[in-house]
Amino acid sequence: MTERRAAVDASIAATMDALGQAARTAARGLAVTDSERRNAALLAMAAAIRSKAAAILEANETDMRAARERGLSEAMLDRLILDGERVEAMAVVLEAVSELPDPVGRILAEWQRPNGLKIQRVAVPLGVIGMIYESRPNVTVDAAALCVKSGNAVILRGGSESFHSSQTIHNCIRGGLIDAGITPECVQMVPTRDRAAVGYLLASMSEWVDVVIPRGGKGLLQRVRDEARVPVIGHLEGVCHVYLHSAADADMAREVVLNAKMRRTGVCGAAETILVDRKVAAKLLPDVCAALSAAGCEIRGDETVRAIVPAAVSANSEDWAAEYLDAIVAIRVVDDIDNAIAHIVEYGSGHTESIVTNDDLAAEQFFRSVDSAIVLQNASTQFADGGEFGMGAEIGIATGRIHARGPVGAEQLTTYKYIVRGTGQVRP
Amino acid sequence: MTERRAAVDASIAATMDALGQAARTAARGLAVTDSERRNAALLAMAAAIRSKAAAILEANETDMRAARERGLSEAMLDRLILDGERVEAMAVVLEAVSELPDPVGRILAEWQRPNGLKIQRVAVPLGVIGMIYESRPNVTVDAAALCVKSGNAVILRGGSESFHSSQTIHNCIRGGLIDAGITPECVQMVPTRDRAAVGYLLASMSEWVDVVIPRGGKGLLQRVRDEARVPVIGHLEGVCHVYLHSAADADMAREVVLNAKMRRTGVCGAAETILVDRKVAAKLLPDVCAALSAAGCEIRGDETVRAIVPAAVSANSEDWAAEYLDAIVAIRVVDDIDNAIAHIVEYGSGHTESIVTNDDLAAEQFFRSVDSAIVLQNASTQFADGGEFGMGAEIGIATGRIHARGPVGAEQLTTYKYIVRGTGQVRP
Repeated sequence: MTERRAAVDASIAATMDALGQAARTAARGLAVTDSERRNAALLAMAAAIRSKAAAILEANETDMRAARERGLSEAMLDRLILDGERVEAMAVVLEAVSELPDPVGRILAEWQRPNGLKIQRVAVPLGVIGMIYESRPNVTVDAAALCVKSGNAVILRGGSESFHSSQTIHNCIRGGLIDAGITPECVQMVPTRDRAAVGYLLASMSEWVDVVIPRGGKGLLQRVRDEARVPVIGHLEGVCHVYLHSAADADMAREVVLNAKMRRTGVCGAAETILVDRKVAAKLLPDVCAALSAAGCEIRGDETVRAIVPAAVSANSEDWAAEYLDAIVAIRVVDDIDNAIAHIVEYGSGHTESIVTNDDLAAEQFFRSVDSAIVLQNASTQFADGGEFGMGAEIGIATGRIHARGPVGAEQLTTYKYIVRGTGQVRP
Repeated sequence: MTERRAAVDASIAATMDALGQAARTAARGLAVTDSERRNAALLAMAAAIRSKAAAILEANETDMRAARERGLSEAMLDRLILDGERVEAMAVVLEAVSELPDPVGRILAEWQRPNGLKIQRVAVPLGVIGMIYESRPNVTVDAAALCVKSGNAVILRGGSESFHSSQTIHNCIRGGLIDAGITPECVQMVPTRDRAAVGYLLASMSEWVDVVIPRGGKGLLQRVRDEARVPVIGHLEGVCHVYLHSAADADMAREVVLNAKMRRTGVCGAAETILVDRKVAAKLLPDVCAALSAAGCEIRGDETVRAIVPAAVSANSEDWAAEYLDAIVAIRVVDDIDNAIAHIVEYGSGHTESIVTNDDLAAEQFFRSVDSAIVLQNASTQFADGGEFGMGAEIGIATGRIHARGPVGAEQLTTYKYIVRGTGQVRP
């Protein structure tokens, strides 16, 4: 058994190292490819997706059959399934990203030193990105689009459920690269479903991979935390809050809460806990909770909430920390804005929080004191999305504090270098 | 033995967790402290350093005695020793950093979406920084100054050789914080020399520490690579190159090489390999090598170099990869700029490289193709320094690709959050 595993591991290692080495070489070339060529590749990929739509749907049908046989949940099946509209949406993303300004070569800052040295900070690609994701086949396109746009090579490792869909989409991406005269090694896909490949990518490829971006459920994220030996642009839980301040507009409070919780319950920007200022709890809660209940949401509340909304079930401290990703909401009454902020500091995950208030001073306090990646006033937490931020697409939403926070688009996939022009300066 | 170690580890863990928890709380307060108060703390630290200069020198004498008894190298002793001038320099750094613009709260970008949402990307502190460094006591001041300036709490873990010096300096820093009404837990120092504390900081404190910055020799950096479970803003080798292009000015070539190699040989920005274009090798090398030899530098060269400079000893491929940090230089003749770039890609460490040329097109090719953190034209590699870049001070030079590259000053110790102002927008 041990020998067998060692043999498997050696084969995985050889496969992955070959991918990595090819990606490193490809990345060096892509980094100095001009913007027109990278955009041409994106448009050629879009054309290939459209012309191969039937083959993509057929591959997806294979994945769906296997997924149904394995008894995957309806939510998982919904993420996995493709139709003509979803395939067309992939082509549209590629076109949208091709229209974005080039994130590479931007002069981020420039200044001159008293000794005459002229210093520029210039955006350059990160290098090679390892992308680990789960069931949604469209992530294959989003990741490839943003990486090529930003001059990065990428090694894709999609979920095993979407293996055939992703392979077929990957063929379109390769074709687009080749059409534009770019080596297809810029976008590679791990050719095996063996989970050992993920471990190898996380722990043993720092020579070839500059950063890993994981996008998936708690199991994947825990694995990344435990095993990663390369830098990670991570994505943790989204325990997002909406705080209804004493100066909240009642209609806006209801509409924002309803959208933040129920528009889609399975996304990381969905609200999980609603905090309500004591001064307006009796005024706002009946209407807010009626709207949530009518939309099929289970309400869990503290004692004060239950006194106002008898249908609510009792919430405990586990609810304050829960990322339900489901039609369940926890509601707590707080004494004031300081209490609301303290609750968010204690239970929040640093993802996205919104305050509903017409008092701009209160909003400023909330903005200053809540240190989440995204803090909103009078808007739904479900705007936590690269597309909604105008980034064309996103490769994920970062909740770490290093490198990028919030939606990660093409700009966030760059780093920088310093270019210094002198006239013979030496250091005293 | 095992029981003893477990007991030690539990004590270290308790000590370190207490530091971490206090730092996390302190960081939350510091992040919302206004700029005037943070600057007042820096000035009060400078005053304390000056008024306690005698105590600092006395503590340093204790460290020096122990270091001499342990037989530390002259180079190590030189890094460790303080005198009146070096103490004054610490006070000056604190004052210089207090004069810098506030890196916190900068609006890095702002735009409005078609739906009316106003989005701002605003700089915020990273949070809690773990700083692991070696012998130089002044790093205690540089790190504290930059962290307080940028609103970060910091846990300092200096080298055991500089234990007494750093503790005394740390007392001045605490005093300055208290004088300004800031909790001294913002700058904490690991109170033990036990090396297990470093391991605990790297592997077990991700709840309290947002990023670790290591600054030291290869042993420390290897340890960080092996053990870190928190994000790292790393600092690897500086295998820096000077490339003398065919259009190099002869005098400038000599002066830049001499300064890049010999100004200080022990810094990471010191040049280790000189590449010389074949077309100008016979013209430039005699003069360049005479200047290096006169300054006491050992010259190792390839066959072509040795044919021109008979005193040179033979270089092999280990020399191309060497970070000597000493008065030794490797010299290689290359056919053209493409060869020079290929050599740097193969052997360089991505730190700092300089081209000497009067041909600006050649310089542009070098800038584009050499993907090091710092790329210079007609200037010494020893300008790789936060102070020389105008950052007031630096906490290190990052050679990773994530978050910050090159000199890390106060600005690089920030991340950002998004502030989004709406009027009730919900997502369709």
